[in-house]
Amino acid sequence: MNKKNTSRVNCITLTTDFGVTDEYVGVMKGVIRSIAPDVPVIDITHAIGPQDIRHGAYIIHAAFAYFPENSLHMIIVDPGVGSDRRIILARISGHLFLAPDNGILSLLLEKETYEAAYEVTCDHLFLSPLSNTFHGRDIFAPVAAHLTGSIAPHEVGTYLPQHKLTRLTLPQACVDLETRTITGAVIAADHFGNLMTNIHQDTFKSFQHTLSKSSMTVSIAGHTLHGIQESYAQSQEKELLALFGSRGYLEISMVNDNAADSLSAVPDEQVTVKIFLKINKFDNI
Amino acid sequence: MNKKNTSRVNCITLTTDFGVTDEYVGVMKGVIRSIAPDVPVIDITHAIGPQDIRHGAYIIHAAFAYFPENSLHMIIVDPGVGSDRRIILARISGHLFLAPDNGILSLLLEKETYEAAYEVTCDHLFLSPLSNTFHGRDIFAPVAAHLTGSIAPHEVGTYLPQHKLTRLTLPQACVDLETRTITGAVIAADHFGNLMTNIHQDTFKSFQHTLSKSSMTVSIAGHTLHGIQESYAQSQEKELLALFGSRGYLEISMVNDNAADSLSAVPDEQVTVKIFLKINKFDNI
Amino acid sequence: MNKKNTSRVNCITLTTDFGVTDEYVGVMKGVIRSIAPDVPVIDITHAIGPQDIRHGAYIIHAAFAYFPENSLHMIIVDPGVGSDRRIILARISGHLFLAPDNGILSLLLEKETYEAAYEVTCDHLFLSPLSNTFHGRDIFAPVAAHLTGSIAPHEVGTYLPQHKLTRLTLPQACVDLETRTITGAVIAADHFGNLMTNIHQDTFKSFQHTLSKSSMTVSIAGHTLHGIQESYAQSQEKELLALFGSRGYLEISMVNDNAADSLSAVPDEQVTVKIFLKINKFDNI
Repeated sequence: MNKKNTSRVNCITLTTDFGVTDEYVGVMKGVIRSIAPDVPVIDITHAIGPQDIRHGAYIIHAAFAYFPENSLHMIIVDPGVGSDRRIILARISGHLFLAPDNGILSLLLEKETYEAAYEVTCDHLFLSPLSNTFHGRDIFAPVAAHLTGSIAPHEVGTYLPQHKLTRLTLPQACVDLETRTITGAVIAADHFGNLMTNIHQDTFKSFQHTLSKSSMTVSIAGHTLHGIQESYAQSQEKELLALFGSRGYLEISMVNDNAADSLSAVPDEQVTVKIFLKINKFDNI
Repeated sequence: MNKKNTSRVNCITLTTDFGVTDEYVGVMKGVIRSIAPDVPVIDITHAIGPQDIRHGAYIIHAAFAYFPENSLHMIIVDPGVGSDRRIILARISGHLFLAPDNGILSLLLEKETYEAAYEVTCDHLFLSPLSNTFHGRDIFAPVAAHLTGSIAPHEVGTYLPQHKLTRLTLPQACVDLETRTITGAVIAADHFGNLMTNIHQDTFKSFQHTLSKSSMTVSIAGHTLHGIQESYAQSQEKELLALFGSRGYLEISMVNDNAADSLSAVPDEQVTVKIFLKINKFDNI
Repeated sequence: MNKKNTSRVNCITLTTDFGVTDEYVGVMKGVIRSIAPDVPVIDITHAIGPQDIRHGAYIIHAAFAYFPENSLHMIIVDPGVGSDRRIILARISGHLFLAPDNGILSLLLEKETYEAAYEVTCDHLFLSPLSNTFHGRDIFAPVAAHLTGSIAPHEVGTYLPQHKLTRLTLPQACVDLETRTITGAVIAADHFGNLMTNIHQDTFKSFQHTLSKSSMTVSIAGHTLHGIQESYAQSQEKELLALFGSRGYLEISMVNDNAADSLSAVPDEQVTVKIFLKINKFDNI
């Protein structure tokens, strides 16, 4: 306890499936404020689908890097609350993540730089009595608050090597170089009805040397869209289009309308990109 | 006005039925910030059912104690706005509560320690012109903000003894010791579809000396559940279960699913707990 | 860059159509905090109807004046994101407004005091890479954050005279002095189902000299309401009534119920006020 926390947490974020209709989020902020009155707490979202670990994995990966280094991200999508599932504190790419060890950090572990992880066992910091249903309030909030000042990350518990952390098998976009096809899936719809897929723009690098000479189609739910647009403004009102969304993934949108509703598309809906070589008779002449 | 506020309010919370789709909550924060730029304002919830005073009474009672002492809780569920209903400032268990005098503090008055209450009549602090429909903005927000610095609680108006405060008749869980039955009711469903009842875990103390030798059933909406579980993790996916929720009340839940939807259970739905003595032939031998 | 910002922005507000189900709002706050760690960011609302510029125009006009002077209001309802639409910073009535130049400031420009406006072209402050779909994160957030300290308003780009700003033709309430009729329209319903119209209380000034001797009817969707009430409390449970809401506009409400649902009234629904002279045989005797 007399160790100094050299890289002090100066910002806490919240990503949960708690919704905002109950007092749950406010109560966690109350607990944090009771221990660490000055640390700002920023909501990322409380609308992760109930118990939807995969959705949470994508959202926190899309969001974390826009916060200052040494932010502590509380991620609570926790169907195993009250069981013997571990709670972990992981340091990844200069940020701290406090989460149940249920795979919700999978995308971070896959794409970012793992630095360290600890099992949270510092039960002298937990609220007492400890409930079996709301560890966000009784464990996550006080531990996060103490990490802004009185303790260092390694003081929350035992070190965990990376291979001990639970990993989720996330559906991967598949590239078939021979048929020039990328096959992926819808991950979630956003507030506007934009359908985010798991096809990252980097996936297209496999075809990079020919992309400038290519045309593309994107197929979803019986619709075939021609080309990948630069912005919504390039298409007509109510037109379906494919473009790279702000998270770097291919999205299917409808200009000034709701693509998810129009396509009745749901998570796991298949999305197929086909890349056609343009035949250009003047090539290499 | 030259009296010092010795126990300065250092945190304001908001519990309302305003929703978050309009500018109402933001505007209240703007008014607070214009007067008290440094005080943090924390949302508890804005999703109390419209004009549902009882729901508000349970939520603020469940939440307040997780905030620092001397927090000021604004509670605005106010069907009587613009009538001659009083606005009160009450000090209860070391916290301040600013609310319409419509019974929303009933549970706090019943279970916590009343210290003082005042009718808010300091109209020189109200915004002007004073609307008849949005006292949250015109009265609650400026009075709360001034309580963080320039005035002390007793300066908001006339002292009110406890018996003058409006009390709501909240449905009480009934204990029948003879038939070993507790009869209660659903208060509200949360975001996950967990059904909170008015049966507090303390109610079971009446049966304490025999509980270890007992089994229980919990009946709701034609379903009978066996036993009260320790956590969700003890039950199977989609199984209905009864357990004590994080607020201390008996809740009916469905593992990784929505009990409220599955049972079509609504507030006031009856919940019955029966306690059976286990016959153990080795007892007292 | 070495110019001092004499009227420092000390508060940022957010008004968007982003909803709160995605990480979008949190990410903008992360970007702001990374640049300006101490400035408070207050949500006005994120529930402007998707791409509903007119709704946004009314809400920001209703809200801004309750924030401290020199607040910076980010208003992002931006169907043209990624096109060549301008982003503007306007100083109006002592506040700063950062918004797409799509008419969302129309009501402010019409009713408040224009001071200055600039086209935001300071692309060295934008995030890089710059997305075509989320300028809230990549342009609005960093520019707003820099305006709290390192730059002055005129440093964001080229000065724009008022007539160059895009104006929306907002439906105006019409006054017919001869038939003593005011004709307006529903703008939006709020969380409680109150229907806000575009008939401002100032519109009634045309009839001021006779109002005390008048009675009124308000007609909407086949219903005729008698008189304009002072508060909800003057009417019976479930009764439809007309009153001036907290924004200064005529609203149609239902006591402790939802007028929008009951009337199936939608934006643009016509609202007619008729003013009848009371015949008083004792007048001027």
